[in-house]
Amino acid sequence: MNATKTNKGRFFEDFRVGEVIRHATPRTVSTGDVALYHGLFGPRFAVQSSDAFAQAIGYPRSPLDDLLVFHMVFGMTVPDISLNAVANLGYADCRFLKAVYPGDTLHAESEVIGLRENSNRKTGIVYVRSRGFRADGVAVLDYVRWVMVRKRDEAAAAPPAQAPALPDIVEPARLAAACPPLKATAYDTVLAGSPHRFGDYRTGEKIDHVDGVTVEEAEHMIATRLYHNTARVHFNQFSEAQGRFGRRLIYGGHVMSLARTLSFNGLGNAFHVAAINGGRHVAPLFAGNTVFAWSEILAAADIPHRSDVGALRLRTVATKDRPCADFPLKSGEDYDPAVILDLDYWALMPR
Amino acid sequence: MNATKTNKGRFFEDFRVGEVIRHATPRTVSTGDVALYHGLFGPRFAVQSSDAFAQAIGYPRSPLDDLLVFHMVFGMTVPDISLNAVANLGYADCRFLKAVYPGDTLHAESEVIGLRENSNRKTGIVYVRSRGFRADGVAVLDYVRWVMVRKRDEAAAAPPAQAPALPDIVEPARLAAACPPLKATAYDTVLAGSPHRFGDYRTGEKIDHVDGVTVEEAEHMIATRLYHNTARVHFNQFSEAQGRFGRRLIYGGHVMSLARTLSFNGLGNAFHVAAINGGRHVAPLFAGNTVFAWSEILAAADIPHRSDVGALRLRTVATKDRPCADFPLKSGEDYDPAVILDLDYWALMPR
Amino acid sequence: MNATKTNKGRFFEDFRVGEVIRHATPRTVSTGDVALYHGLFGPRFAVQSSDAFAQAIGYPRSPLDDLLVFHMVFGMTVPDISLNAVANLGYADCRFLKAVYPGDTLHAESEVIGLRENSNRKTGIVYVRSRGFRADGVAVLDYVRWVMVRKRDEAAAAPPAQAPALPDIVEPARLAAACPPLKATAYDTVLAGSPHRFGDYRTGEKIDHVDGVTVEEAEHMIATRLYHNTARVHFNQFSEAQGRFGRRLIYGGHVMSLARTLSFNGLGNAFHVAAINGGRHVAPLFAGNTVFAWSEILAAADIPHRSDVGALRLRTVATKDRPCADFPLKSGEDYDPAVILDLDYWALMPR
Repeated sequence: MNATKTNKGRFFEDFRVGEVIRHATPRTVSTGDVALYHGLFGPRFAVQSSDAFAQAIGYPRSPLDDLLVFHMVFGMTVPDISLNAVANLGYADCRFLKAVYPGDTLHAESEVIGLRENSNRKTGIVYVRSRGFRADGVAVLDYVRWVMVRKRDEAAAAPPAQAPALPDIVEPARLAAACPPLKATAYDTVLAGSPHRFGDYRTGEKIDHVDGVTVEEAEHMIATRLYHNTARVHFNQFSEAQGRFGRRLIYGGHVMSLARTLSFNGLGNAFHVAAINGGRHVAPLFAGNTVFAWSEILAAADIPHRSDVGALRLRTVATKDRPCADFPLKSGEDYDPAVILDLDYWALMPR
Repeated sequence: MNATKTNKGRFFEDFRVGEVIRHATPRTVSTGDVALYHGLFGPRFAVQSSDAFAQAIGYPRSPLDDLLVFHMVFGMTVPDISLNAVANLGYADCRFLKAVYPGDTLHAESEVIGLRENSNRKTGIVYVRSRGFRADGVAVLDYVRWVMVRKRDEAAAAPPAQAPALPDIVEPARLAAACPPLKATAYDTVLAGSPHRFGDYRTGEKIDHVDGVTVEEAEHMIATRLYHNTARVHFNQFSEAQGRFGRRLIYGGHVMSLARTLSFNGLGNAFHVAAINGGRHVAPLFAGNTVFAWSEILAAADIPHRSDVGALRLRTVATKDRPCADFPLKSGEDYDPAVILDLDYWALMPR
Repeated sequence: MNATKTNKGRFFEDFRVGEVIRHATPRTVSTGDVALYHGLFGPRFAVQSSDAFAQAIGYPRSPLDDLLVFHMVFGMTVPDISLNAVANLGYADCRFLKAVYPGDTLHAESEVIGLRENSNRKTGIVYVRSRGFRADGVAVLDYVRWVMVRKRDEAAAAPPAQAPALPDIVEPARLAAACPPLKATAYDTVLAGSPHRFGDYRTGEKIDHVDGVTVEEAEHMIATRLYHNTARVHFNQFSEAQGRFGRRLIYGGHVMSLARTLSFNGLGNAFHVAAINGGRHVAPLFAGNTVFAWSEILAAADIPHRSDVGALRLRTVATKDRPCADFPLKSGEDYDPAVILDLDYWALMPR
């Protein structure tokens, strides 16, 4: 009787390639969400902070922080896609397609684009392309992620393995759909907090973002609930005490927002995350850890028909309890044990 | 000199039956309050989350979560009613009378409807009917609660005992004033996150809400301050360290909101709390505990002249550090020691 | 390569008297910021809480809490002024010049008005006059602060010592610019939560604000990030563990807001902080401490041409882990070891 009303989440054998899943719960975003995001992360990018600044360069008002949009759409997908996930394995081809403003209502859907059972027959990998939409049907976000999901029944037959072809990077020509044409001359670098424009960065340049921020249980739970993300490992100390780590695991997206916020110090004019090429949650983060970050400029690209902005391809690496003055990344074949996030993305900067 | 300016709160002998107390502080509610409520509890009911969803079925926009309204009105009453309370004993005849929207300004008043000194002469029970109003005078909430309040002076004469007659339940005909006529066919159960409508629930059915959520000190204090609730036991570790429990006590309403949020998993279309028949804070909750919940359908009732929605009478039981797969409630005559809340209320569901 | 992009903050020898520094990041304030401020502090002053109350007495709507405006402007100055500060030494001549409303965009600038190297040649004192402005250029806040800042190089030459002349108090004639003419008769003291108007307070009167509030790490970090205050000592447990106190230091302004909120109980109609004459952060506050406060009426002043409001000069003292029934302040020559804040300011009250 109970099982018929409660959502236990889908298991691997419940997914079918080609299936499109419409997600609950739609959400009208507000300046309240923005304020809470500021309180939880403290981003200082002027475009997302000041309506006057945003309007001066061509936005109708301050758009939401891109990662806030990402987390809200991601959160909607959790009850249908990853409630029984063992691990969130990767992201690809993530593009921000339209600026989101307070008052917009978002909803999401996911298409199953690949399935591959693991050899142990206990789990399988589910590939989905998830999309966030405004209420008028305009897409604001599009990304692929793949997760390892438990099987309900090890003996259940698996569909033929089918993995999608995914691009290593989003091509520059596909960037900047969410960025209106800007008056780059009206972009005030003093108000923005950094004198360095697109042309000032060089491929191979590495930047230590210097600052560190310690995370508390209340903070990551408030953030993760704000996104309606219901993944159990983040909230339930009673069950996690008996689990793999003995404690609550922090949502990987929390680290992405912390790293993005820390990156302001050195990348203050990288005002818009246009795309995420890929990302790996290398190791778990727990409350009490202090997060640091550094970035490398992987490439600097022109965007066709855009003389206002250029795109920097960035690798931003986050660590825990380890300052980044020496840019920690690998230790032999493996990641340095302090590394928790390795994120590859495109950010726009005014020229 | 000091005592003349500081509010020490009323003691039992300060109350008079028939007295009407107007409460401070009026409050304009905002999407900021809504965002913080989402961050603190993570409710996923679509009506309160999406303006577009709410408008599609007949609301002008998303109303505030009913319990957020309850907590704000309750908070206003604390400095006048329960600053010297020993215990919050019960609620009855609580009805939500009008949907509240961001931008509305709320204020509250309470009428003393009963007084009964306890035999120890140290305390007495105060019954009040509290009401929340919009600035235009329209009532949005009406409920009775009774609290055990200290006497300032044990020797003080007590008024004759007078306890009000209170209904065991709110009759179905008195429900749904706060719910506009709905286009139930426009209610999209996929977006809402549950396929089960009013007709799918049966009296006697029990639902384990499965998930658990651990509470942190920062969370319950932020929530309780958001409601302007000044009860000292929630905030002051210095004095509570010397008190009954050695630590801060979590506001009972925090448990109500946690249980309501957990109940989404199994009752996703129970979009509106129309009335609270009664409730008992069975045991205290402390930071670090993990809250679980289950519900029983006590009754399913038609509401006169409403073909759009039906009312489910629900008993929602919350526990601490105890999953609810076996629906814990009593242990012999007494409550199971893990039970912290036993709430009896009416929720509306689309037909 | 790294140092060229990252802001390391100015050192003592980087400042020049007369220099005007425009600060990042401009900020559009919202009801979301207000809600979060309520959740973090719980202020119950009716003017800042209810649009209807504010409008009844002559405001267009509820203005932001004055200290919220102070913290936001202060936060903007941190990356340029005090990133390498050893200590925040004092404030003077702080005036609130214009009420700030949700939707206003704020930015800030600071003029260096004094410099004085310390005899150890390792540090120097920097005096700045900081101003907050709306996007239309109207000033909303003006204050002087002085901080002890490290030298990058002890051997660096110092400019001739030059300390500004600063007033001990803001003269009453310079108060109330931010307060529109009020209909004092429409000020409802019941809704406001206190019967005591301007005329009810006497010079020399002391008020114990009674209540205590314990501070959590998550709370002060969320607040301080909300203000875009990036001072490292508040956020980074990894580095502070090796520092002077072994733990994160709470932003001094957090104590100011806690004390102001506690002061509602006894000063409920002191609805507007018009000016801060001076303030001293006597000792540090850490998470887990419980804050108490008391106030003394230092003076009661008429404001020229204002028959609606009067000004109370208040000394509000905050303590940690020490109730204030006996008004703790000094212990011999020094402050009582429990005292953490000694603040001297003007608050307006309706007549």
